[in-house]
Amino acid sequence: MDDVITLAHGAGGTVMGKLIKETILPSFFLRRALEGIGLDDLDDGASLKLRDHEIVVSLDSHTVSPLFFPGGDIGRLALAGTVNDVAVMGAKPIAVLDAVIVEEGFPISDLKRVLSSMNRAAREVPVAIIGGDIKVMRRGELDQMVIATCGIGIAERGRVVSDAGARPGDRVIISGTIGDHGIALMATREGLQMETAVKSDINPIWDVVEAALKVGGITAMKDPTRGGVSSALNEIAEKSSVSVWIDEGEIPVRDGVKAASEVLGIDPLEVTCEGKAVITVDGGRADDVVEAIRQTRHGRDARIIGEVRATYPGYVLMRTAVGGTRIIQKPVGEPIPRVC
Amino acid sequence: MDDVITLAHGAGGTVMGKLIKETILPSFFLRRALEGIGLDDLDDGASLKLRDHEIVVSLDSHTVSPLFFPGGDIGRLALAGTVNDVAVMGAKPIAVLDAVIVEEGFPISDLKRVLSSMNRAAREVPVAIIGGDIKVMRRGELDQMVIATCGIGIAERGRVVSDAGARPGDRVIISGTIGDHGIALMATREGLQMETAVKSDINPIWDVVEAALKVGGITAMKDPTRGGVSSALNEIAEKSSVSVWIDEGEIPVRDGVKAASEVLGIDPLEVTCEGKAVITVDGGRADDVVEAIRQTRHGRDARIIGEVRATYPGYVLMRTAVGGTRIIQKPVGEPIPRVC
Repeated sequence: MDDVITLAHGAGGTVMGKLIKETILPSFFLRRALEGIGLDDLDDGASLKLRDHEIVVSLDSHTVSPLFFPGGDIGRLALAGTVNDVAVMGAKPIAVLDAVIVEEGFPISDLKRVLSSMNRAAREVPVAIIGGDIKVMRRGELDQMVIATCGIGIAERGRVVSDAGARPGDRVIISGTIGDHGIALMATREGLQMETAVKSDINPIWDVVEAALKVGGITAMKDPTRGGVSSALNEIAEKSSVSVWIDEGEIPVRDGVKAASEVLGIDPLEVTCEGKAVITVDGGRADDVVEAIRQTRHGRDARIIGEVRATYPGYVLMRTAVGGTRIIQKPVGEPIPRVC
Repeated sequence: MDDVITLAHGAGGTVMGKLIKETILPSFFLRRALEGIGLDDLDDGASLKLRDHEIVVSLDSHTVSPLFFPGGDIGRLALAGTVNDVAVMGAKPIAVLDAVIVEEGFPISDLKRVLSSMNRAAREVPVAIIGGDIKVMRRGELDQMVIATCGIGIAERGRVVSDAGARPGDRVIISGTIGDHGIALMATREGLQMETAVKSDINPIWDVVEAALKVGGITAMKDPTRGGVSSALNEIAEKSSVSVWIDEGEIPVRDGVKAASEVLGIDPLEVTCEGKAVITVDGGRADDVVEAIRQTRHGRDARIIGEVRATYPGYVLMRTAVGGTRIIQKPVGEPIPRVC
């Protein structure tokens, strides 16, 4: 099993982390461009410094099945995914390029639907779609479609937000409910019929990040995609050499997500969100930041869910609803619904 | 046939051009970022202007079968492809990000081989690999591996070279032999046993472009990838509203490529090159530019192959070896070897 790729190698957990550290990083001569953020920083994107600006660049490929699902589709996902990676680095997203690969025989009407959806999401930010590429693979060589998107943002030099800056005394903010995207997809794939339909939360959230940055005091930011809030918090704790403490009772989870998670046997903390940010902020500014985020379209359910401490560096700990404390570990691979 | 994607939609010819103009561009709200080059310029990359610099960005996904072939592999292809797109825009390539998608079950040793090859190509330029992403698709959902690469380059503001600047009186330069990459791949796929083995020409060619730019007088540049020299020249002719005249006898083609092309029934002009540039240059500087390119590692076989004229705008014409003249049209789709 150690010599071939498994699904867990792409799932954002510890197995993927091992592949990156043992196989990918050692293959590359690690070099920064213009003193910016590089590959070995393992952040949401990279950067380049140019005079008084810092240009943030992010590249991600997007694979999702099914292509169209409650609350979104691969086009909206590809656009929001890269915009959010740029945004949580503290940079204003300004442009996106997309590279579409489709399978021979793919309906052109579906291609139009996906591109139009990507375009709508781009106008919401707004970012300009400034370049692209299309490739076709032979029938049977690709399951329908994948899209890679590259996002470009600009920040003032030295104002980029990494995920390594959290400090003891900071508060931890989540910009809204968790688990919506991953649970919506799994519920669709498993054919789950719930009373309250679960919809993906795919949204570009520059509005949320911009509001937080305007107040100030932000020390670290991540969008909890693969591996969910659990992976995002663990990365902040590891890279910042602090512990992150969260309160189970404060974590916003929609009723439908809660119910579906129970049926599927999955912890919403480990599930992909596609329109949320996890933010650590100076204790004295936390209330103002939450208040500002709540005024934005995509941040109405923002909450303080915990705080940062100096003890137990590298750990994420949760005070549970019944009064105990448990360690929140990075998931190993992708959560597997117990119904399948 | 008009309502589903065919292989020709990704092949860089007229069918792809129609898809881009009728389906892709109308799906997007066309907007530039910071007054740079946008999607509807249909150039090799896009750009953003920032004070006295212009940042050039290119995104391409790379699919190739087989993954390893004479002269290269998908890793070298993905790196050189994006570096060359940035270079032919007249920008110095400084950084690359890569997004790898692999199929479950893919050997990790092959992944290492591909990444190391990408790294070697990056060091040749040199460019820094500053970010990346890995995704895994289920077994059967993807044929082995695809890689998307994003390249970033910097030029002085206003010094970016488009493919729309050719002017009557310019000379046309090719930086080396044509058809090597496409013919090497087709010969491998068809199991062709030739006396002279054909090897791909995959090389990052910033050295060639830099030498040309230093002399000056460059008016348009393209790397003849999908659709070959034929597509590249047609695009320059169309966008610059000029005609391009070339001499069959001046076009450098290796003996092995010539022989394999004849067996396969394919015109090398329509075949992908992966380490060449087509350059139009002010008539008075053409000899100096060719001389400078010939001093570079990847430009030893550079030649003047023709000139630009005002008559017949949008056309590419070739004076044939037997003394006639024929119109070189953009290929419709991918050249199909007649042996299959």
